[in-house]
Amino acid sequence: MDSQNDLYSDLSNHIKPSPIRALMPFIRQPGVIGFAGGLPAPETFPVEEIQEITANVLAEEPGSALQYGPTTGDPRLRQILAERFSQKMGMDLDSEQVIVTTGSQQALYLASMIHVNKGDNVAIESPTFTGGLSAFDAFHANFVPIEMDNDGLRTDILEEWLQAGNRLKMLYTIPDFQNPTGVTLSLERRKKLVELANSYNFIIMEDAPYTDLRYSGEHVPSIYSLDDTGHTYFCGSFSKVFAPIRLGWLIGPKQAIGRMNIAKQPVDTCSPMLTQAIVYYFLAQKMLDPQIEKIVKFYQKRRNAMLSVLDEVMPEGVTWTKPEGGMFVWITVPEHVDVQKLFHAAIDQKVAFVTGSAFFIEGAVQSNTLRVNFVSETEEQIEVGIKRLADVIRDML
Amino acid sequence: MDSQNDLYSDLSNHIKPSPIRALMPFIRQPGVIGFAGGLPAPETFPVEEIQEITANVLAEEPGSALQYGPTTGDPRLRQILAERFSQKMGMDLDSEQVIVTTGSQQALYLASMIHVNKGDNVAIESPTFTGGLSAFDAFHANFVPIEMDNDGLRTDILEEWLQAGNRLKMLYTIPDFQNPTGVTLSLERRKKLVELANSYNFIIMEDAPYTDLRYSGEHVPSIYSLDDTGHTYFCGSFSKVFAPIRLGWLIGPKQAIGRMNIAKQPVDTCSPMLTQAIVYYFLAQKMLDPQIEKIVKFYQKRRNAMLSVLDEVMPEGVTWTKPEGGMFVWITVPEHVDVQKLFHAAIDQKVAFVTGSAFFIEGAVQSNTLRVNFVSETEEQIEVGIKRLADVIRDML
Repeated sequence: MDSQNDLYSDLSNHIKPSPIRALMPFIRQPGVIGFAGGLPAPETFPVEEIQEITANVLAEEPGSALQYGPTTGDPRLRQILAERFSQKMGMDLDSEQVIVTTGSQQALYLASMIHVNKGDNVAIESPTFTGGLSAFDAFHANFVPIEMDNDGLRTDILEEWLQAGNRLKMLYTIPDFQNPTGVTLSLERRKKLVELANSYNFIIMEDAPYTDLRYSGEHVPSIYSLDDTGHTYFCGSFSKVFAPIRLGWLIGPKQAIGRMNIAKQPVDTCSPMLTQAIVYYFLAQKMLDPQIEKIVKFYQKRRNAMLSVLDEVMPEGVTWTKPEGGMFVWITVPEHVDVQKLFHAAIDQKVAFVTGSAFFIEGAVQSNTLRVNFVSETEEQIEVGIKRLADVIRDML
Repeated sequence: MDSQNDLYSDLSNHIKPSPIRALMPFIRQPGVIGFAGGLPAPETFPVEEIQEITANVLAEEPGSALQYGPTTGDPRLRQILAERFSQKMGMDLDSEQVIVTTGSQQALYLASMIHVNKGDNVAIESPTFTGGLSAFDAFHANFVPIEMDNDGLRTDILEEWLQAGNRLKMLYTIPDFQNPTGVTLSLERRKKLVELANSYNFIIMEDAPYTDLRYSGEHVPSIYSLDDTGHTYFCGSFSKVFAPIRLGWLIGPKQAIGRMNIAKQPVDTCSPMLTQAIVYYFLAQKMLDPQIEKIVKFYQKRRNAMLSVLDEVMPEGVTWTKPEGGMFVWITVPEHVDVQKLFHAAIDQKVAFVTGSAFFIEGAVQSNTLRVNFVSETEEQIEVGIKRLADVIRDML
């Protein structure tokens, strides 16, 4: 097959590798202060609890924990997730409205799989999470990039586009502490989105991996909880509040979950029952909320450290977002700065970030941007790293 | 979304649920002797070894075992799989020819994803594994069913079809102890397949989940090991020789593995590093081959029990395969017997099987067939269950 491109599918020739994973060889060098990745800090993983729970699961229920399971997930996990979000959202969710996925990446993939036809318009925040883009790109979606400001995606621009008669299949949003910008969508705009989804009949894909990681400000109700018209999916992940053991979930209308059940069967039959049992008991033993508190305290310090050193050292003309949660700060440099050159200059100075261009679709790139995470490095390293970054930027002004 | 079918994709309207999973409500009744499932016997799971390894992994390397990993899999696992199959196949495999997948179901899905365009011809054994069908159906393959006999798929029929000028993209085969028939593809036909793949330039998808489960007869070399032209993929699973923790692998040309790496990113980013570490240490500590020996001894007795009771009690006119390994026996009843009615009559008598029609594509159904597994029940229960089944069949003759 190696030399024979005629044997590959149009899809394989169409999809592109993750631009971030392509930066990894540079980023992974020893001694480099890493603001580039999107990985949670392993120091936050509840290792002792996982050790204890896993030992119990393997002792008490090895026959089911190591066996195939239902495609929609461990019924106990679906039930406890339904209960958790019923409480959080003040709704009455049924476990049949929940599907467990192999990471929330798969939740995005399955939603795309059951809804997106080639050429369907999918509106995205510009910039947005590259994994979200890849999930819709795998079904040849036509992306409609919507600009953002400090209140999140510009619903006025979306409405204008819809009023012009364009047909939208789905809108993809990360409303809380968005990746990569760190911006949170305002309540007013969430309500507006629900109103638009209902009038123009499109689906809202609400991706909420960071929602529990709030370090300041007030919780904003999820879009899902504001939508009584059944146009919204709510998906999330255990990766950022527990550990990336590749488990996520999606909540939506029963019929849609039934279709995702069928769609997931060819993809991987079912997610591992062992990791599902571990997460189930972590939830059942009421360990998740204390764990979230711990992580919030841990990351809060790092966010504060990064925001204060940015204030302190960044030269005139450089701006950045002030996230109330999540993992990322979005930095904008003067337009004449070549951020690709900046990236390599920074690597030479042993500090890594992700070039902002990675998060835009072709034609909508704001190239004078970069993403830094504040979760991977200690406060001391954050200070050192941001100072280095400021120096490298200053040299290019 | 519930009531709005216009919001769903053509794919979602196209794909069908697993016909076997649809039988589950009937099969899962208490007291029913279960010959229906394809699940390995939990008594064979190496629970103690998994307990010990998992405890060590969580103690020694929690930061990586609970973290995101490379999309292609844990490099240590890729390496040890390359070494294992280099030795088994007498080849020199590189770890870059291996991708770790979330079950071998995902290996089939990724192969289909990077090769199959809508309408491409994919040749299948008729009957075949429903999960294989679903993986190719998800990309709208056009199935070309190839009849089988006791030496496996009829390569002469395939050759005739190719000689007629038809273009084939891929051939899907389970050469060893096929699911559902239990039949093994002869060496001569394996060589013929490689010759045909090379002359007519199609891909052979060799699915080998049962290969290590041989209870009699001689090992037959894998198609992959016979192919020096790079037209074959070899995939397998840890589900039947270890436990269904949702890990499989695919071996193929480097460029193709690179494309699968890109294809897997939108699907689930990466498979769990925890389960990969568990399997890696199981292999590294040389536990797999002794484990396979144990399982073979365990299932061998059950296969022998089933074949002897079938001989003893089945009425005239009923025939069945004599598998040298795997999990399944394929039974053919006289054409006038309605196997759907037989299924429900059997359930009434507290014995379950899968109707053969589930394993055929539309238009090629041999409805007077059924699949029984010989791994789930004890020898005593096998005897009781097959006697009940024989009685029910006799009543319908």
